[in-house]
Amino acid sequence: MSEQTSASIFSKGERLPASYFSGDAFLYPLVSKDKNNEFALGSVTFEPGARTYWHTHPKGQVLIVTEGEGFTQERGKPARALKKGDVVNIAENTEHWHGASANRKLVHIAIANYKGNENVVWLQPVTEQEYNQVNQK
Amino acid sequence: MSEQTSASIFSKGERLPASYFSGDAFLYPLVSKDKNNEFALGSVTFEPGARTYWHTHPKGQVLIVTEGEGFTQERGKPARALKKGDVVNIAENTEHWHGASANRKLVHIAIANYKGNENVVWLQPVTEQEYNQVNQK
Repeated sequence: MSEQTSASIFSKGERLPASYFSGDAFLYPLVSKDKNNEFALGSVTFEPGARTYWHTHPKGQVLIVTEGEGFTQERGKPARALKKGDVVNIAENTEHWHGASANRKLVHIAIANYKGNENVVWLQPVTEQEYNQVNQK
Repeated sequence: MSEQTSASIFSKGERLPASYFSGDAFLYPLVSKDKNNEFALGSVTFEPGARTYWHTHPKGQVLIVTEGEGFTQERGKPARALKKGDVVNIAENTEHWHGASANRKLVHIAIANYKGNENVVWLQPVTEQEYNQVNQK
């Protein structure tokens, strides 16, 4: 497992559940939904090979890549490679996944907007075949 | 003027106006308000000595410090020292300022929530006396 480096802004935090994440993924929560902030804010660390399940956000999500390398992919589209400084504005109700590359970890801040009390809908895992296809390009 | 280092996530962007900022401050915009994101998202770089004017946010603001050292202060309260990894959740309609320390630059991501079409109300400059008092502690 990779260690935090001097480049890391936050601690890795707590392990994310295997029911929604494949591999070793961690969440360091920053700000919870409150009367002003209609989103959950946190830093997510994906160890090499780790990624989310396919999922949607009912009111979208913004990712800010702070370290490492990875991918995000919308269902039926080519994957987008991610590196430090990239910002992804994910539309509402759009099936997608994000995670590390096979050989490098990925760290991003996530701003997950709430629609009512919901900010994510989890779907099925990203299969090894789906993940390997993205990494082979 | 300090250069971007390998630690910097974003470019410095464009200079912020002297009517609202003292010293050399820069904005690199990341995401504008849209149908899902009810905030303006950007990275702000304050060169040493630079700071905002006193101001308020009608629906609050979140700061995420990504590099350097600085301060934030609410009117009538002691200043809070800021360093990489600190997160500040600023309440609505609360007079405050933020900026670099006298000798180190400060870089933070800002999430400025909108109330209607407004996300900031600018007030008067932070005086040299106010700023020096914070830095002397």
